[in-house]
Amino acid sequence: MFKKIGVILSGCGVYDGSEIHESVLTLLAIEQHGGEAVIIAPDINQAKVVDHHTGALQPGSRSILSEAARIARGPVLPIDRVKAQDLDALIIPGGFGSVLNLCDFAGKGAECSADAATAKLIRDIHTLRRPIGGLCISPALLARVLGEHGIRITIGDDPGTAAALEAMGAHHENAVADGIVVDERHQIVSCPAYMKAKNLVELWSGVNKLVGKVLELA
Amino acid sequence: MFKKIGVILSGCGVYDGSEIHESVLTLLAIEQHGGEAVIIAPDINQAKVVDHHTGALQPGSRSILSEAARIARGPVLPIDRVKAQDLDALIIPGGFGSVLNLCDFAGKGAECSADAATAKLIRDIHTLRRPIGGLCISPALLARVLGEHGIRITIGDDPGTAAALEAMGAHHENAVADGIVVDERHQIVSCPAYMKAKNLVELWSGVNKLVGKVLELA
Repeated sequence: MFKKIGVILSGCGVYDGSEIHESVLTLLAIEQHGGEAVIIAPDINQAKVVDHHTGALQPGSRSILSEAARIARGPVLPIDRVKAQDLDALIIPGGFGSVLNLCDFAGKGAECSADAATAKLIRDIHTLRRPIGGLCISPALLARVLGEHGIRITIGDDPGTAAALEAMGAHHENAVADGIVVDERHQIVSCPAYMKAKNLVELWSGVNKLVGKVLELA
Repeated sequence: MFKKIGVILSGCGVYDGSEIHESVLTLLAIEQHGGEAVIIAPDINQAKVVDHHTGALQPGSRSILSEAARIARGPVLPIDRVKAQDLDALIIPGGFGSVLNLCDFAGKGAECSADAATAKLIRDIHTLRRPIGGLCISPALLARVLGEHGIRITIGDDPGTAAALEAMGAHHENAVADGIVVDERHQIVSCPAYMKAKNLVELWSGVNKLVGKVLELA
């Protein structure tokens, strides 16, 4: 039996959705470590659409489910239909989508709130004491939802971001690009990924460590 | 000095652009083999937009350059500004974008024609005797542009597709999911990738072999 690892995506592209390299390497590492990925996304529209070539805002709106399905190569499970007990672990790749769509940390910092269905799944997985992995900026979402429990996490070493996570109750620890911080008590694993990684080789090293640890805890 | 490997993208998503897993793993393998990727795309709109969650056609149009930039994490080089002599090799990941946007093989089979700027770059690289790698369905584009030279290529083992490539002058050889066909004479390497691969582990094995061979020839 493969362990079922829920992977929450927030779109498709670093500036308005899930960071694509982090997402694909997470899926590869899950398979290599003998798990099965279940790709999940909230059934809402992206907060914004960014032209990734020019950096400018683009008119129109995009469905997170439809964009995440580009990374999934087909249908994605709407997050409000996912039951925590059906998953052995949860991993959240980074990208601005994590802090624009899954919560609004990008605009509001420590005053942010999280998408209700996403927050519920994270809380339910944590209550079951199953592991959660957060890459890049996604630990900000974990701090919003689980900070009150004093979870230990990393987003690399940016002092402003670290202070905002601490303001939500989390304990931040600095880490290098491919380092991971493991909170054994709360079963939470985090990795700076593209908050620090300068290339795909560094990124792959960190993603692989994080996924390996989450699968080991699951 | 890193070898500069041009990677031609055709959008961002298997059904209307570049296949995302193939593209990201190509970029990872290029770095791991000591090369530097130069991401290139034609400055035109996608032939269509497909909702990857429902499979339905979506209204609106998308710029290939802007969508490819999602995979590139920033600006992409317009293909008509790329000079073949500045590249040591060329790799074209798959996805329907290769046969909808870079050429129209998806609709017209052996009667297809290729985007002019894309065809010019492929021809110029071939004239310089520098290696070209084609993943998944992209060898159909290579058959359109270089078939007259009798290139040897694979798209896996689909008889109908293979016959269409032969009708354009290419010689098709069957290959398994992570097999590669190497045409030493024409410096062309091809791999079935997701034409055959059933998961990311198989895909990664094939992509890694293809990229390793292209870098070796470069």
